Parts: sequence; C-alpha cells; structure tokens
Amino acid sequence: MRTRRPRFRDEIITLAHGSGGRATHALVQAVFLEQLANPVLSGLSDAAVLPLDGARIAFTTDTYVVKPLFFPGGDIGELAVNGTVNDLAVSGARPVALSAGFVIEEGFAVPDLRRIVGSAARAAAAAGVAVVAGDTKVVERGKGDGVYVATSGVGVVLDGVMLGPARVRSGDRVVTDAGLAVGDRILVTGTLGDHGLAIMTRRRDLRLEGDLASDVAPVNGLVRAALAAAGEDLVAMKDPTRGGLSSALHEMAAKARVGIVIEEARLPIAKAVRAAGEILGIDPLVVANEGKAVLGVRPRAAERVLAALREHPLGRSAAIVGTCIAERPGNLILDTGLGKRLVAELDGEPLPRIC
Amino acid sequence: MRTRRPRFRDEIITLAHGSGGRATHALVQAVFLEQLANPVLSGLSDAAVLPLDGARIAFTTDTYVVKPLFFPGGDIGELAVNGTVNDLAVSGARPVALSAGFVIEEGFAVPDLRRIVGSAARAAAAAGVAVVAGDTKVVERGKGDGVYVATSGVGVVLDGVMLGPARVRSGDRVVTDAGLAVGDRILVTGTLGDHGLAIMTRRRDLRLEGDLASDVAPVNGLVRAALAAAGEDLVAMKDPTRGGLSSALHEMAAKARVGIVIEEARLPIAKAVRAAGEILGIDPLVVANEGKAVLGVRPRAAERVLAALREHPLGRSAAIVGTCIAERPGNLILDTGLGKRLVAELDGEPLPRIC
Repeated sequence: MRTRRPRFRDEIITLAHGSGGRATHALVQAVFLEQLANPVLSGLSDAAVLPLDGARIAFTTDTYVVKPLFFPGGDIGELAVNGTVNDLAVSGARPVALSAGFVIEEGFAVPDLRRIVGSAARAAAAAGVAVVAGDTKVVERGKGDGVYVATSGVGVVLDGVMLGPARVRSGDRVVTDAGLAVGDRILVTGTLGDHGLAIMTRRRDLRLEGDLASDVAPVNGLVRAALAAAGEDLVAMKDPTRGGLSSALHEMAAKARVGIVIEEARLPIAKAVRAAGEILGIDPLVVANEGKAVLGVRPRAAERVLAALREHPLGRSAAIVGTCIAERPGNLILDTGLGKRLVAELDGEPLPRIC
Repeated sequence: MRTRRPRFRDEIITLAHGSGGRATHALVQAVFLEQLANPVLSGLSDAAVLPLDGARIAFTTDTYVVKPLFFPGGDIGELAVNGTVNDLAVSGARPVALSAGFVIEEGFAVPDLRRIVGSAARAAAAAGVAVVAGDTKVVERGKGDGVYVATSGVGVVLDGVMLGPARVRSGDRVVTDAGLAVGDRILVTGTLGDHGLAIMTRRRDLRLEGDLASDVAPVNGLVRAALAAAGEDLVAMKDPTRGGLSSALHEMAAKARVGIVIEEARLPIAKAVRAAGEILGIDPLVVANEGKAVLGVRPRAAERVLAALREHPLGRSAAIVGTCIAERPGNLILDTGLGKRLVAELDGEPLPRIC
C-alpha cells in the first residue's frame, strides 16, 4: 500500500497553511518532511522521543504567534510555556527544562514584555520546570506583531510508558455499557474549545455573557494521575491544540486504522463556549485547547482513569467521550443521539493565529 | 562584592536591544533573568548544561531574523542549523538532535521556503544531526518579514569536558615567546568578521572586489579536533556570533577576572572583510561569525591545538591571537604593535538583524 501523500501545488504561503488542518499538513509533508526526512520527525508526534545515553528523552518545539498577546485567561508567555510542557507531558515525559526565544518588534512596550515574561516564569514554576536557555531578537517596526515566542522543551520519558496514536485498538463490535469486545475508550481531561473561542470572541470584540476564558494550563499533573491509575492501559495521548479534539482524534483514527465514535451528549463543553461557537459559527471540536489532554485507554481501565482525573483540580470535567471501533477506519464519527455523522477533517483556516 | 547589574530604564524596545551588546544585556538582565531567575539561565552560556539520568545534556535555542534571507555564502536555513550546532559544540557537546520552528509571512514564495528548508536539511546532514521536531506558523502580510526561524538543539556533553569562560587564567606576567608564567592563550579557528560584513555589504548593495561571503559552517568537527589535541587543557570555548570576537572575549575577561591582550598582527581577517569594514566603518572584531570558535587553552597545549585545528579543512586560518593577563581584569586590550588600547564593549546597534 502506498502512503497517501497530499499533493502540494501552492506557490505562495497563505494563512490556511498555518491552520493546523489539511493545508498545514500538505505543506509540512511536501516542504519539510520531504527534505528533512527522518523517521522521528515524520512521526509528527507532540514530542520527539530519542534514546540518549540509556535514557529516553522527549524533545519538542513550538512557535507562538497568538493574537491578541493578552487574552481572557492568559497571555502568550504562559501559553508558550504550557504548550511546551503539555507536548512533553502527553508524550509520557516529565518536563525537565525549557528554552524560550523572543522575536520582539521595535517599539514594543517594555512593561508589556515584562508582563509576558512574568507570566512565563509563573507558568514554568507551576509546572515545576525551569527556563534554562533563551534568545532575544528585535525586528523593525512593521516586521513583526509585538512579540513572537518560540519555546522548546526536553523531558525524560517515564519508565515503562509506551504511548502512540497508533496503539489504540477497536473491539470486534461496539458495546457501550457492558459485555466483551469493547474498543479502547477515548477520554478528555476537561471542557473543549475554551481557548480557541476565548481568543476569537476577544478578537471580534464580542460581548458575550458568561466567563469565556482560555483554559491555558499545564497538563503534566493530570497526565501523571492518569498514568498512575492506568499503567500500561493508557496507550495514547494527544495535546488537542490547533484543530482541537477533531484533529487529535482524526490522527489517532488514521494512524491506528480504527473508527472513533464520539457521543455528543458526553462532550464537556462550557455553556459560554457553546454559545460563542454558535454565534461565530465555529465548532468547539475544531478549535485549540491549551490545558487539556485526549487519552486512549483500554476499556477495563477507563473508569479508573476517569476517577483519577476527576480528583485532580484541573480534571473535574473529565469525561469518557468515545470508543474505537473496527468500522470506518480512519474516520471520526459523531453520535448525536439521533443519528451518526462523519466529522470532516479541518481543511482551511477558520482560526488564524490562535496559538 | 555586589554583582554589577546594568540599570534598565527603557520604556520601549529599540533595535539596540537586539544588538547582542550592552543594551541587549541590560534587557536580558532586567526583564528576563530577573523573572525567570535560575542559575543555569543566569550563566548565559551558549548552551545550558543539565544533568539528566546520569548524563550531562546540553540544550540551547536561537531565533533567526537575518536580513536578507539569502546572502552570499548561505541562507537563514543553514544559518539556523549551524548556529545551534555551534552553540552545542562550543559547550563541549556532541549535537544529537535539533528542532526548527518557522514563522512564515503570508505571501511568501513556496520555492523560497523549499530552498531554505533544503539548506537546513543539508546543513544538518553535514553536521551529523537530525531535525526531529518542528512547527510552522503563518502570520498575516506585514506582520513578519518573509521567514523567521527558531532552532533549538540537544547534545550530550562529552566525558571529561569541563568548559567555562571563567576558567581561563592569567600568568603572573606576560611572556609571549618563552619562559614560565604565561597566561592561557586565546585561539580562533579561522578568519574573523566574514558573516557580519557579508550581510552588511549585501544589505547596502555595495559592489566590492573579492569574495565576501558568510563563513556559516558547523564547528563541531573543529571542536572535536581541538578537544582531542588538548584534553583538559582546553578550558573555555565561545561561539563568537553577535558582538563578534570582542563580545566573546569581553565575556571571558569579565567572568574570569583577567585581562585579555590580543595582537592585531595575529588576527586572521580576510582582505575583502578588512576592506568592507573600512568602507562601512565596521570593525570586523565586533561583527558576527557563524562558523568559528574562540578557545581558551592552557599555554602548554596552545601550539598542539593550533596544529590540530589547521589540519581540519575549516581550520586552515586558525591562529593564536591573544593571552590572558593579570592586569586590567575584565578588559580586552588590542596590541597594535605600536601600542596598546582598550577595546570598548559593543553598546548600541551597528548591525541589526545580522543573524
């Protein structure tokens, strides 16, 4: 079977190439993976896992161009730190050290920079990790947009942890409440869509009722709790940032060659997020989360993991939301209670500069 | 004794804050180190060295905003890879893996992006390191400047290597040709100022005679050769990028509390670089090098290290250029042959966006 490789005929870069959806994937395949080709990079996981002197280290990077820099619930500084902590955490690693590079536009206010760096410092302390390397560059007015932040992180993969989106498996048939042959269960550690919709609401200057705020937070504590409860029964974890739960589960479904059914009634979505999503025409399932993890868990451990997550202050809204099935491999299916429909993979660019 | 801490009263960011000189240092101290404070970051070394499961790993990051993106001798892709390889190498580490994040401006030409990524890939292959993690973001037209690249790298510090700018030491008196009590010698692995002056010449569209090209190259091979020849007698290494040889030696002089005398006649500077420097009024000693290392070596090993460097294809112009002395601690002194003068530490911003 040949690998599906998206065609790439675009001649210039558009905002769609930064969406985290199909256009990004096509660009990454055609321009980056084709030339930088190596098996670790090609895995496109949240963090690369490398053998190093007997240990397994996780290594990850992200660039942050979120707009606005300050948003309800956080700012680019804590977003950058937590984003990197979370990439390490969902790779089964204990975050050890971070780096941070700042590209600052001439004319940027020093007090704002101080505030951003302060948020980054507090986020690092909260996650129990140090920023040990940094860089600062300044570009001329009109050649940046305030501040861009690039963070990288290294961590040590915990002993015995083997995670991968390809590891989830279907049962022979779907049995949701009892019986044998149930496929792996999909859990989320909390509400969905908060970050993306908080950003979009602020950007469009909508005044909505309710507390709409980014969920930006470190998930390493939640992940530790889940691993402690599940052991080897926790087989896959993803950080559902750009592209949201939808992209995370599409990836899992594609790599594991399973179908994934999610039940709409079980999806934890805050009222304010749902309302904002309806007004803006944005599905909370396709927007970035910045303090959540998606887990693939063997069915026998699902309730145990759920209980462990819910005991954690950041996991009170955790839920079992779906199941892996043998039918429709590679697809994500939404069970609305009234019927089932395929969820399309994000394509274009509904949400530029969300993180 | 209280630590000298530069005052920082600036209210907005200016290009000077990106120079790598005193303004950058003041910003980094006041905004970054004060809040992110930890001993590893505060060392401001080329790479952080961390204990990790028994090994010592080196970890470094850089952001690249060089302008133009394509310049004589290279482009931002190979600059970003080599810059990170070199930060690891001068920290005594074998580079293991790199990450690369791209912030791309909407409208950027895909063939140019492909070319940059291709250069990065070739540079990584030449240095024997893989790019294992990446990220791509797109910003709107007018919010970037083509492409910014953020690279980070991890490496394993070689057994027995102990390097630090504070480790160079002076002799009791300066004896340049024979005798006892000579201070540690300063070596450079090749010509100085090539990158900075190639960039400035191209940016100002000067047509100069001679081959003025960036020296962008990986120094890890040179460093290996030097370590093999010197063993423990190689005590300090720096990557003389922003601020050039001058900044690298000012740092060494300040941290080791020694004076450093460099002999003008021994400084390897290409004719074209010298000519461009004179026309532009830029001293090759204060501009970035991107394929060189500065070494502090115990005097007994200096000639041996020089010979080893000169055997390497990238080290043919290596030279012993200076000596650490007890007088004038913290200062860099240029011996012109006719007399001696202090070299001032770079302050303002002669060279924005040089790397």
